[in-house]
Amino acid sequence: MNPRRMSRPVQIGRTTIGGGAPIVVQSMTKTDTRDIMSTIAQIKELEDYGCELVRVAVPDAEAAGAIRDIKKSVSIPIIADIHFDFRLALKALEAGCDGLRLNPGNISDPEKVSTIVKKAKERNVPIRIGVNAGSLPEAGNRSLTIAEQMVNAALQQVRLLESLDFDLIKVSLKAFDVPATIQAYQMIAQKISYPLHIGITEAGPPRTGVIRSTAGISTLLYLGIGDTIRVSLTAHPREEVSAGYEILKSLNLRQHGPVLVSCPSCGRTEVNLVELAGAVEKELARIDKPIKVAVMGCVVNGPGEARDADIGIACGKGRGVLFKKGKKLRTIEEKDFLAALMSEVEDMTG
Amino acid sequence: MNPRRMSRPVQIGRTTIGGGAPIVVQSMTKTDTRDIMSTIAQIKELEDYGCELVRVAVPDAEAAGAIRDIKKSVSIPIIADIHFDFRLALKALEAGCDGLRLNPGNISDPEKVSTIVKKAKERNVPIRIGVNAGSLPEAGNRSLTIAEQMVNAALQQVRLLESLDFDLIKVSLKAFDVPATIQAYQMIAQKISYPLHIGITEAGPPRTGVIRSTAGISTLLYLGIGDTIRVSLTAHPREEVSAGYEILKSLNLRQHGPVLVSCPSCGRTEVNLVELAGAVEKELARIDKPIKVAVMGCVVNGPGEARDADIGIACGKGRGVLFKKGKKLRTIEEKDFLAALMSEVEDMTG
Repeated sequence: MNPRRMSRPVQIGRTTIGGGAPIVVQSMTKTDTRDIMSTIAQIKELEDYGCELVRVAVPDAEAAGAIRDIKKSVSIPIIADIHFDFRLALKALEAGCDGLRLNPGNISDPEKVSTIVKKAKERNVPIRIGVNAGSLPEAGNRSLTIAEQMVNAALQQVRLLESLDFDLIKVSLKAFDVPATIQAYQMIAQKISYPLHIGITEAGPPRTGVIRSTAGISTLLYLGIGDTIRVSLTAHPREEVSAGYEILKSLNLRQHGPVLVSCPSCGRTEVNLVELAGAVEKELARIDKPIKVAVMGCVVNGPGEARDADIGIACGKGRGVLFKKGKKLRTIEEKDFLAALMSEVEDMTG
Repeated sequence: MNPRRMSRPVQIGRTTIGGGAPIVVQSMTKTDTRDIMSTIAQIKELEDYGCELVRVAVPDAEAAGAIRDIKKSVSIPIIADIHFDFRLALKALEAGCDGLRLNPGNISDPEKVSTIVKKAKERNVPIRIGVNAGSLPEAGNRSLTIAEQMVNAALQQVRLLESLDFDLIKVSLKAFDVPATIQAYQMIAQKISYPLHIGITEAGPPRTGVIRSTAGISTLLYLGIGDTIRVSLTAHPREEVSAGYEILKSLNLRQHGPVLVSCPSCGRTEVNLVELAGAVEKELARIDKPIKVAVMGCVVNGPGEARDADIGIACGKGRGVLFKKGKKLRTIEEKDFLAALMSEVEDMTG
């Protein structure tokens, strides 16, 4: 695994992005931002899932103004997502947003950008330059690859912000195409030292979107690139947050609740392992401490993996062996598998 | 994206692994192999999902013998998964298996391995040396990293097979730990030229297992490593095959049915995009031709992505614009979104 690219830290409210800080999991609300109660409720739910930064859409002045009331009731920093109308960025800043996201594809006029930047600077509010392959600037050179066009669009706005003596910058370069996205981030990682927000855009519904997002985000993280991640799914945003943490856990970059090891089962398995693992997964959902639990179907890898876990069970015909931190605890009957396993888990995390 | 590592091709029945052949998607049955009818039914279902190679567990002589009957009714090659008892490998070869998987962690005696290899050679049947972190050879050096121990266990058996003038070899090195697995494959890729079967072992139930598997497999593929993939999930094996194809599609390595682009939706969206995308995904399940369909919630990236797709819709309040191959077709009412989109998809794929 490549060492993490060193980026200069940017502070968004209470959350640090880059500079060696833990990789931040963020999401975006899907409620109408003007519906303040629904938006607050969704953000609070995301907080419960561990979301550390949340973005809200700002399609009009009322949505910008709503940020003031939303902020009163939530704990995590709020980023205002701005497109087309630079005045909405000004209003969001006035309403107290902790960060701005600007898209160079639809606000590019240097004067308008400068007006935003001056106000952001006064308030010490960072700006993400959020490039998206679906909304590249018209002026881009179409003979370049998508990755090159995204990088150019970002760099142009980075230079503009720097010329205004503004450096509270994050950058993202998202496409639906995974290799193009990875290439774009690899290119820009060598050109700037600002933190990078990574993700795959419009990745789709969970079944396929999780795979496409993971393919892009995990490869970038493996290459050492990425300071904050957002998994974009056509689904409730809590699924984005959960998936984000699972990606980070897979690469040992963050701990976040339990990790479940379970074998796929095969013609050798003599218990209903899919059912057992499913039940364990459901029970583990209420545990918030990091613990590694293994549910294994047979003697091939069962004892090895069960021993390696904090709590593990290696199942055989009608009975299984319970392991705790590498030591065999006892043999249990099939009817007791779930209860015995969870009782040990609770002992260890309670 | 790194160029694909050149490996020497190995033929398993009708399927070629390595040597620049398309990356093969494989799975493993979860039925009792001795239950011939259930195993055939599951393999046929996997064939329908595009599975190109299937492994069956061989826990005893009856399971080995069952391969003869199973093979009569299925089209894809069958690999016999052997552990502990070398005589089961001989019986599986006699029953006509197309490939063998041996685990150096539980059959290591050179004489026993030689007996298997001689018979496999007579029949031209390849052997996968399938190392698993949960069942490393007892004799391994525990002061080495897991990756190093896996590589050593594989290399030792590779050398044994080579000393017997046998080169129909594939290798796998699977751990639950994603960085360890990636590191092991990177190490062995530089030491041997045999094709590599890649995957993450015991990755768990679908929600987390898909993410862990994708993190490992997609990173390896991005690095140019991997000739065949197996996604191990505690779930029906059809989910393993679907996930395998989604990983390959994400990296533009294979085409396999439709690709659905859909935005996550946000406070800007004025239609129920989660519902619409879900309905489109369901309808697309019956289309088997490659086609890119975009379902987008607003004007930010909507027209851009919808234009880039074969068929796309960019939704606004109560109506949307239908695009076909980059050209605007017409504006449609919200109630007609699904039907209009699918009618165009069917025209294009029918």
